[in-house]
Parts: sequence; C-alpha cells; structure tokens
Amino acid sequence: MKTLFPERDNLNSIINSISPDLILILSDENVKKLVLQQIIENNPILYDKPLCIIKSGEGNKSLTSLQKIWDFMINNGATRKSLLINIGGGVISDIGGFAAATFKRGMKYINISTTLLGATDASAGGKTGVNFRNVKNAIGAFANPEAAFFYTDALKSLPYEQLISGYAEIVKTAFLMSAEEINEVYRIDENLNNPFKISDIVSECIKFKLSIVDKDLNEHNIRKVLNFGHTAGHAFESLTLSQGNSIAHGIAVAHGILVALILSHLQLNLDSQVIQDYSEFLKLHYPRLSFNCEDYGSLVEFMRQDKKNTCSESINFTLLKSIGHPIIDYKSDINKIKVALDIYRDIMGI
Amino acid sequence: MKTLFPERDNLNSIINSISPDLILILSDENVKKLVLQQIIENNPILYDKPLCIIKSGEGNKSLTSLQKIWDFMINNGATRKSLLINIGGGVISDIGGFAAATFKRGMKYINISTTLLGATDASAGGKTGVNFRNVKNAIGAFANPEAAFFYTDALKSLPYEQLISGYAEIVKTAFLMSAEEINEVYRIDENLNNPFKISDIVSECIKFKLSIVDKDLNEHNIRKVLNFGHTAGHAFESLTLSQGNSIAHGIAVAHGILVALILSHLQLNLDSQVIQDYSEFLKLHYPRLSFNCEDYGSLVEFMRQDKKNTCSESINFTLLKSIGHPIIDYKSDINKIKVALDIYRDIMGI
Repeated sequence: MKTLFPERDNLNSIINSISPDLILILSDENVKKLVLQQIIENNPILYDKPLCIIKSGEGNKSLTSLQKIWDFMINNGATRKSLLINIGGGVISDIGGFAAATFKRGMKYINISTTLLGATDASAGGKTGVNFRNVKNAIGAFANPEAAFFYTDALKSLPYEQLISGYAEIVKTAFLMSAEEINEVYRIDENLNNPFKISDIVSECIKFKLSIVDKDLNEHNIRKVLNFGHTAGHAFESLTLSQGNSIAHGIAVAHGILVALILSHLQLNLDSQVIQDYSEFLKLHYPRLSFNCEDYGSLVEFMRQDKKNTCSESINFTLLKSIGHPIIDYKSDINKIKVALDIYRDIMGI
Repeated sequence: MKTLFPERDNLNSIINSISPDLILILSDENVKKLVLQQIIENNPILYDKPLCIIKSGEGNKSLTSLQKIWDFMINNGATRKSLLINIGGGVISDIGGFAAATFKRGMKYINISTTLLGATDASAGGKTGVNFRNVKNAIGAFANPEAAFFYTDALKSLPYEQLISGYAEIVKTAFLMSAEEINEVYRIDENLNNPFKISDIVSECIKFKLSIVDKDLNEHNIRKVLNFGHTAGHAFESLTLSQGNSIAHGIAVAHGILVALILSHLQLNLDSQVIQDYSEFLKLHYPRLSFNCEDYGSLVEFMRQDKKNTCSESINFTLLKSIGHPIIDYKSDINKIKVALDIYRDIMGI
C-alpha cells in the first residue's frame, strides 16, 4: 500500500500522529466482497474497528447512504476527534469525506483507494459530496483528507473498462505536467501490469494535483486546469447517458481530451504531432464513441450547462499552448467547437 | 438596520460587491408573520426574490428542512455564485448557513438577524448546522457569512423571555471584554429600550467575538473562551429539559455564568465583588432555577457530556482570573464543582 500524500511512512504512523479518540471504517459491498478483509488483515491498526458498509455504485452516493453513515458515527459515540477511514473507490471517498467534514462540524478522515480512478481523481484534492435530486455532487464540501493511500493489489480485481477509465485521469494530468510524463503514460500496458510503476505514476499525478489544489482549494482560478478534457468529456458522458448507452466517466474524458487538443491546435497553435500521438493511443486502447453532426447541438448544450454559461455565444475551455502549459478560461465560440468536432470525427473515423 | 460586520455601508453595497448571479431568501413562518415583509420593503434589492419559508423552532432545524432548502436552491437554478439571505433568528442562520455552505460545495450567504440571541450568538462566527437524531448541531460546518445585519425593529415583537435569553450572551461576552463593558451591560432596561444603544452593544460583542474566531475558527483553543458560562449553563438546560420544565438557552447560560464566577473565585481568586454585583443583576432580571443537592449528580454528568470528558475526575471550564482575563481548559474537580453549586444555591436563596 502506497501513501499518495503526505510523504510519511505508513498508515500506523499517520494515525498515531492524529491520535484519534476512535477509529471508524467506511466501505461498500463490492469492496467488502473483494479486498476489504485483506486490507484490514494487512493493517492491524484497523482490526475490530466499527465498520459501516453501504451499497456500491454512484446511485448510492445519496442522502440515504449519508444518513446511514451519520447514524453509524452517532451510534458508535464518534466525536470531532474521531477518525474515519474510507476504503473503496471514488464514491466512498466522496461520501465518506463529506460525512466526516460535516459530523460535529468536521472530523478528520483518511482515504484508502481501491480503484485507479479513485486514487487518481477522487481520493486527493478535497472535493467531497453526494448526489441530490439527480444533480451530481449537488451537495458537498471542500475538505482535505489527512492522507490518501492507494491499495494497488486491488487493481487485479478491476475490470479492464474501469482500469482505462481511471487511467484517463492520469493521461489528463500528464498533459498538464510535461512531454516526458505523457510519453511514459502512453506505455499503458507496461504500467498497468506493474504495481510499483502504476503507483509511482499515480503518486506523481497526485503530487502535481495537490500542488495546484494548495494554491486554489475552492476552484476560483488555477485549479480549473484540472478540468482539461472535462468540458467535452462531460458532454460525451451526458450525450451517451441521454441515448441510453452511457459510458464510464474516464472513457468520456479520454475522448474529451482529444477535442481539447484539437481546439488547442486551432486556437493556440498546439503542435499537430501531439494530436496525432494522442489519437493513436486513444484508438488503440479506448472504445470508440458513436455520434454524428446531428448531435452537435446537444453536445454544445451539455458543454454550456457544464460551465453554466447558459446565455453566451462561447464556452470556456482549459486548453494547451503546449504540453505542460495549460491556459484556463479560454473562450471557444460555438462554430469553432463544431469545427473541432468535425476534425475529431475525421481522426476517429466515425 | 445595522451592519454588525463587515464595516461597510449597507446591504446594497455588500450585495453589489459580491455580485451574485442570483439572490435567494430563507426565512421561517414566525418571521414571515411579524417582520419579513417590512424588511423586504425597506430593502428594494430583496424585492421579488425567490423565497423559502420553513417551519419555526429548534425542532425544525432538521434534515427535513435542510432538504427543503436544497430543493428550493436547485429548483431556482442556484449555482456556486448565488447568494442566500437568511432572515430570522439562530435557527434560520444555522440551517441556512449550512445549506449554503454545502450547496455545490459552498455558496455565499448573509444573515439578517431578527432576534437578540441570533444577532449576538448565532449570526456571526461561522458555526452552522442542523440537529440530527436528537443530537444538537450533530451535523454542520464552519462557514462564515459575508455579512451579518441586525434588524433592531424586530426587537419590539420579541417576548421578554427571549430578550433576556439573548441578552445573556451579551453579558457573557462583556465578562470576557472589560469591567467597563460589563457595567454598561448591567443597565439592561435602558439598553433594551434604546435600539441605537442595543445595536451598538451587539456590534461591540460581535467585533470582540470575531476577533477571537479569526484566530481559531475551528475551536481548537482560544475560541473556547466563548464557552464561558456554558458548561454549567448547558447542564442547567439539560436538567430542566429532563425534568419537563425546560428553560431558554440564554437563561440557563445566565445562571451558568454565576457558577463559573464562583469557581473562578474558588480557584483563581476572582474578586468576590464581581460575584455580588452579578448575582444582584441575575436575581433582578432573570427567573430563578429550582434544584437541590440531590440533582448535583445529574448536573455533573451533564457537564461531563458537554465536554466529552466521560471518564475523568475533573471537568474543564473557562474561568476568569479577573473581568476581561479568561483562562480556558481550567480543571475543576467534582468536589469543587459541588461546593460551587452549594454557594450558588446559598446566594440565590434556593
């Protein structure tokens, strides 16, 4: 198990430095079936601690589950000085982080990620919350965990689609970092088959992410670089969802990155070689999307909603001047976006 | 209407400086009956804004009301850049502050207090939350309002018990400030009958409170001075509640202050004249409590729970070395507390 942050030895020393009056564990049914027992056995400090298991899946990142967690805390006599250990994917760290942030106005928590997406995206950075009335993360708080661990052994139990979905967030981060990083990340098979390699890469991504988040926890400005690929990505996610063939978040982001690269080329003269290299990687490892020019209107509407620019004639994107040099809030007008979608379809052959 | 903080002109200029994409108003049924219309009419910036009215009273500082507020925000298209105006007492600023703090991970809010307790205690300082499973403020967050206003005209509509209950928090703060301040505060009738006077005093209290809160929002150390009078106060509140003759929070605190002064005399040599002056004020303006030495066990247990020192033989109090010189986390052993309760009963003639 690798600490993603802070740079300290292990779970024991971090928990001891917090010295909580009570340790509580939160997990879900899937994780319980697959790796929970293993993680607890490998960490005696977690033996016999009160355990709350919620149902798995995004649909259970709900107020109902949240109440179950708050009840569990109250019933076990938790105080503001207790510590919650979230063991699972992004759903568990999101809802557990929010439950901890709001119990008695805030107790501390630690994340142990069992998925690649969780480790890379949700586990660190302090965005916590639940879905409400079908609005994703409608209710939440910014609250950093004390530490984030990545249980790489759990990767063995993940289906391929989940792996590449999580991997897309790594790709995104690498584009914000450097050309060296992105070239390393392109060796996806080699990386996914080597637990040391993948956990090192995730660590690098998290370190980079936290260096950004430290400067702007509440996402007023520079944190927006982390949305690279997400404006078009969310639109692809929403379009496929509305068509009844929804795709995983990371797969949508992987395709959203290509759209962002094309816009970066059109508007900021990003080297076309970057587009060529990335589209080869994308075609080789990710499933294709299926849409045509009749869907452009819906896609643009979804992008607008994502950015809440409901009236304007342009949409803000995070684009790249070159690899490692993102520009936030770059306006792309609707026609330019449609041209980018044409080029995207041309490259992907759809 | 007086701004308690920040030092800016009026509601308009503060709202304009925030420049929200939407203004929403939260209030309750009682306030709607008494002063809401008047406040809106006096502030054209509040005309025709979406309005959410919840049921009045501490029992409605609940998850049910919270969901109603979140629904109201979603249904009106609120975003992270919208602004919530809480108009009411402590219940409204607590629940409205929490709803705002957690909607889309945090939108801004302003409090307009219509009660003395709300203005003095709940409205500023950033403690927000709701009750859950009969635990007061079990769920909540620290989130400061952008500004707090005090609508002194609303005082006319408050029953005397609510006035003196709110006034107890003013008395508490004055003890932490200076001898001059406490002597001014003792002139209760004069102050309550003069809206300018009372709003000046409340402003002074809030300024003092915020100077403390700024140093320690999350109550790790110095903020505990604000608990002066509250350890015994909460015990009186719980005792009377358990006996079916519950008293208002501030009235319990007024009596808790006397216990804290007696302990301060016993342990820190606080001048006995302070006790004499305060007990005269207390007897003249506040209803008596009724308990005897058989209740000491319960009272001590309630004090223990308040501080979560469930096992120890002593309880931490905020005490005074002299007026304006509080000491936090001062340990009083159980016998000393019982002696203080004897002296309290002797002074109060019960």
